[in-house]
Amino acid sequence: MEQALRVCIYGATGYTGIELLRILAHHHYVRIVSAVSRTYAGKHISDLLPYFSNSYLSKVPLSEEPQEDFDLAFLCLPHETSLELTPTLLEKGKSVIDLSGAYRISRGELYPEFYGFEHTHKELLNFAVYGLPEIFRNSIKGARLVANPGCYPTVALLSLYPFLREGVDFDSIIVDAISGVSGAGRKTTQHFHYPEMEQNIMAYSVQKHRHTPEMEDVIKRLSRRDIKVRFTPKVVPASRGMLSTVYIPTQEKRIRDLFYETYKEEKFVKVVQEPPMTKHVIGTNMCLIYPYYDERTDTAVVISAIDNLGKGASSQAVQNMNIMMGIDESAGIENLPLFP
Amino acid sequence: MEQALRVCIYGATGYTGIELLRILAHHHYVRIVSAVSRTYAGKHISDLLPYFSNSYLSKVPLSEEPQEDFDLAFLCLPHETSLELTPTLLEKGKSVIDLSGAYRISRGELYPEFYGFEHTHKELLNFAVYGLPEIFRNSIKGARLVANPGCYPTVALLSLYPFLREGVDFDSIIVDAISGVSGAGRKTTQHFHYPEMEQNIMAYSVQKHRHTPEMEDVIKRLSRRDIKVRFTPKVVPASRGMLSTVYIPTQEKRIRDLFYETYKEEKFVKVVQEPPMTKHVIGTNMCLIYPYYDERTDTAVVISAIDNLGKGASSQAVQNMNIMMGIDESAGIENLPLFP
Amino acid sequence: MEQALRVCIYGATGYTGIELLRILAHHHYVRIVSAVSRTYAGKHISDLLPYFSNSYLSKVPLSEEPQEDFDLAFLCLPHETSLELTPTLLEKGKSVIDLSGAYRISRGELYPEFYGFEHTHKELLNFAVYGLPEIFRNSIKGARLVANPGCYPTVALLSLYPFLREGVDFDSIIVDAISGVSGAGRKTTQHFHYPEMEQNIMAYSVQKHRHTPEMEDVIKRLSRRDIKVRFTPKVVPASRGMLSTVYIPTQEKRIRDLFYETYKEEKFVKVVQEPPMTKHVIGTNMCLIYPYYDERTDTAVVISAIDNLGKGASSQAVQNMNIMMGIDESAGIENLPLFP
Amino acid sequence: MEQALRVCIYGATGYTGIELLRILAHHHYVRIVSAVSRTYAGKHISDLLPYFSNSYLSKVPLSEEPQEDFDLAFLCLPHETSLELTPTLLEKGKSVIDLSGAYRISRGELYPEFYGFEHTHKELLNFAVYGLPEIFRNSIKGARLVANPGCYPTVALLSLYPFLREGVDFDSIIVDAISGVSGAGRKTTQHFHYPEMEQNIMAYSVQKHRHTPEMEDVIKRLSRRDIKVRFTPKVVPASRGMLSTVYIPTQEKRIRDLFYETYKEEKFVKVVQEPPMTKHVIGTNMCLIYPYYDERTDTAVVISAIDNLGKGASSQAVQNMNIMMGIDESAGIENLPLFP
Repeated sequence: MEQALRVCIYGATGYTGIELLRILAHHHYVRIVSAVSRTYAGKHISDLLPYFSNSYLSKVPLSEEPQEDFDLAFLCLPHETSLELTPTLLEKGKSVIDLSGAYRISRGELYPEFYGFEHTHKELLNFAVYGLPEIFRNSIKGARLVANPGCYPTVALLSLYPFLREGVDFDSIIVDAISGVSGAGRKTTQHFHYPEMEQNIMAYSVQKHRHTPEMEDVIKRLSRRDIKVRFTPKVVPASRGMLSTVYIPTQEKRIRDLFYETYKEEKFVKVVQEPPMTKHVIGTNMCLIYPYYDERTDTAVVISAIDNLGKGASSQAVQNMNIMMGIDESAGIENLPLFP
Repeated sequence: MEQALRVCIYGATGYTGIELLRILAHHHYVRIVSAVSRTYAGKHISDLLPYFSNSYLSKVPLSEEPQEDFDLAFLCLPHETSLELTPTLLEKGKSVIDLSGAYRISRGELYPEFYGFEHTHKELLNFAVYGLPEIFRNSIKGARLVANPGCYPTVALLSLYPFLREGVDFDSIIVDAISGVSGAGRKTTQHFHYPEMEQNIMAYSVQKHRHTPEMEDVIKRLSRRDIKVRFTPKVVPASRGMLSTVYIPTQEKRIRDLFYETYKEEKFVKVVQEPPMTKHVIGTNMCLIYPYYDERTDTAVVISAIDNLGKGASSQAVQNMNIMMGIDESAGIENLPLFP
Repeated sequence: MEQALRVCIYGATGYTGIELLRILAHHHYVRIVSAVSRTYAGKHISDLLPYFSNSYLSKVPLSEEPQEDFDLAFLCLPHETSLELTPTLLEKGKSVIDLSGAYRISRGELYPEFYGFEHTHKELLNFAVYGLPEIFRNSIKGARLVANPGCYPTVALLSLYPFLREGVDFDSIIVDAISGVSGAGRKTTQHFHYPEMEQNIMAYSVQKHRHTPEMEDVIKRLSRRDIKVRFTPKVVPASRGMLSTVYIPTQEKRIRDLFYETYKEEKFVKVVQEPPMTKHVIGTNMCLIYPYYDERTDTAVVISAIDNLGKGASSQAVQNMNIMMGIDESAGIENLPLFP
Repeated sequence: MEQALRVCIYGATGYTGIELLRILAHHHYVRIVSAVSRTYAGKHISDLLPYFSNSYLSKVPLSEEPQEDFDLAFLCLPHETSLELTPTLLEKGKSVIDLSGAYRISRGELYPEFYGFEHTHKELLNFAVYGLPEIFRNSIKGARLVANPGCYPTVALLSLYPFLREGVDFDSIIVDAISGVSGAGRKTTQHFHYPEMEQNIMAYSVQKHRHTPEMEDVIKRLSRRDIKVRFTPKVVPASRGMLSTVYIPTQEKRIRDLFYETYKEEKFVKVVQEPPMTKHVIGTNMCLIYPYYDERTDTAVVISAIDNLGKGASSQAVQNMNIMMGIDESAGIENLPLFP
């Protein structure tokens, strides 16, 4: 394994970090050389997650700083920490895949409103490549800094891309999406305490959500138009999984063709015959899409399922790594979901 | 209890029937005299549900036909069975609250398309009163036949009524709603087998659902306009609960006032300050509504929570019974949800 | 309601406090006059739980100290806080029902080992009555201080009582019991964060649990013998519910008779024909017990179900209050479970 | 892949069959050439499970009979079907791994009582090897017929083996074990309908369970003693996962050493420092074991976790296949659990 890509995971003990550990533990071309975790520094991965005891990872210590030199870093960090760490890593010649939102929106002036801080490295916003491979694959090849998309923007943009690519005319977009609880992260909260979340269904961030400008930004880049997105996220009693419904009023009726054509070569985006279920994608890098044109209301309805921690975060980050590094794009992320 | 209202429940061992048993077991003005169940005829209620052993209901046998004379029947039956049974009961002088869809849609010609049968008693469709008390209370008083609304129409129409009542102008309606699994009934299916439904999120009946014409029918009665509804139901891993999001493109911005004004006297519909959660309404007759006007997209977004078996079915049926019979409207349905 | 019993709930916003609010909101002979909550002092109950908006409770403020004079206090407090508050309340002439463990174990010398503090009011340990009505009803009548039993001891002791009452000979007891997550309280923890507890099953406190000496203490009082209990608690993905299995090696085979005889007059303890399920008792004060004698291994196996927050905590506290105050024992706690 | 082992899965669309498909889809030395399913004959795997669309398996048709010649069969069939099919397959020179109970118990005379049928091939009961590799690895090597253990016996026997191997003296065994719902199979039932199983905890088959004689049979083979097992299975709201607690009254206190010594070379059985959680083993072939000696009651308490469909069924079947065929024992079954 001398020639393996040496990888460091910052924030290794949050959900996206743990998912990266799981995926990369068996990735043939990668060796995790450092796992950074402030919370658990001093422990070993297998102290927290005993099932790693058979893996070489069990010997990788959790530490406050990287313990060995590396080629590429995954940042599973708070937005502001990623913001500041990224330029330093780039200067040192590392490649960076940032799973936070720090470099996702090209319009840096939106950060104060949506992220609560001034963006201090606006010069990097155009250097960063938005890591949605089915749309931006060519730019990802050879990129040094990839901004890994948010979970909602991933599923929503994959649901919208065939329209945008084809120049279909429409004026409004509603994204109504349901997430499993892990999308809110590992930090405990009262609402997500097991007894309170069981059998609970709720909307949140109805008035403002960080993923709205992220969607709009990419839509504008693809369509040159300022289309506003009405986005309503919900959370339900499921650990993982994300189901999005996108509504577009349009006269374009041939939408199944549009979707088949757009994704016919894609391994991780599949157009399906029946509305998809999240159970079929959990633990995978798949996005299943069901496009439907409702003639009664002249509305395109696109229903799509991903794993918020898979295609919506960590396995997509690995897909980006594979593309950046010229590795087979599906290496390490071909696994199938558990059923049931 | 000589003077109690004598009630018969047809279909007593499905979910809406069992919920009626639970509610009516402690209703001061009601005595359940018969419980009809083909599946479990010959058994007693407490054979199936041992927690009824302290109740007088434990002695009520489950039978194929009613065992005693009664004043009012709740029909928790398949649509076609309700359709045929209702006229017979009315002729015998009984009052009827039908929880099926057999008498909900005033336009009888829609039944073949949406219910798969010809409506054989169209003459009763205008005789039946649509049992949404907050909208049709006056008609329910003294009605002989109440068509108890579907769960989705209940929550959607309560979300729309303030606009319709006020004559707010709009042209399209999207109803995107999430239900607990009990909404699909007690009959087992592969999808709803526990191991397959755990951690699963899915849309269903995306192309056609019986509740769409039911919503449109009431909207037309209230607005005199033919507005089509785009309706997308989803199901998530929760036994009970329903969360609806209604989207209306409109210039009318004062929607919170509209909602407060409409529901200020209502005991079971409350306008809330934060998006509601279903946990707060399960087991109750409450509907919590959060109206929000999104100025970015000129869209009214109304998020509402009910218990699909409560306000969406059985407790609303009891509310209707109370109104029909001149009993205090909230008798028997004031209970609070379990938390957690 | 002039003559109503005036009640104060200390710790009103934890799970046992909220459950007391739910039950007592509709109790005919009780008025909650104060609700103490340090965490939420200054708010109103309906700020936290909007479904209380129809109740008189919505106007009861949450406060650091009681706002009105009262007759009886429920203490839903940490053990040490209850320990110190109780004597003060008794001196002021209040009746006290303590839901903590501070006064449950008659042998005060066990507190340092099992609770981590020295018991500073040992003189009250014999004054306190152990509030398991089916065993100690006569002592509860007229008691001033009732120590409300732990959830596991409630279900285990009800499973053991017929043996102890009859003087059946045995030497060892295994209690293997499964709890819903709410038994661990409302404070968030990593393990009980929704995404981590979903689909998770685990044992905890295997080496030492506070409820072990509580069980042994009562067993000794009833049998005059020092029988050690081997107790293994587990937690599973359910908000509420507790299922206990008690194993006793014995030659006594007629155990169903023993159980029927013991509980034949009891309203809240029912001997059932099939192993019980927790779904049938959630939200209620019921205990369903299934006693079975295994002739292959000469072992009595007793399987029992309660709601850990009901008969295991708050509804049992109300049962105790009813008995103490000479109210009908089942007032306010006759409600039935939701099904499903 | 010319040289790959050609495998046929009978009963490919039940839970153990689907789990085998998932595991073997990526097994380097195996090619699934036939998938037998009566229920879905005529369809393709990816019609049922769209996530197989990228795999060569998507082209394997589901059929009533095998479509191609094969070397080894996995039988995921009803007991009686396996019973009759096995001799036929053996005669044709196939190797067989039977996941049913048809060949697990060496004492054929127990079948009528526990399985409800007369065993018609008793001559094969000693030919069959009990497929618990950590105990019978040497016999599995080169076996033609492996009886893959039941889920409960797997976890219970791994919890007992160190005592039996060492000849520790004891007279009674209690096995109290909790399973996820998938253990009951894919066939829908009223109890396991999602709305009824949510938040439900129950014991079942308390008086008699097929896995009891299976445990006793292996215990006798290992200890030459007739020790009866008291076994109480429970089911809780989880799709997968199994947590077993074994109680053995004994004076042998050094049990942690015993367990470490027994399993020190094993890759799939790990002795852990804290009571294990099922979340850490779901989707894997791991068994985590926590042995504890309770000095208060002179009882060994062994708590162990497996995935009932993994080490308790399909991944253990693959482990057996690897051993039978001389493949690396862990090939294809090294995957890690999803967390969360």
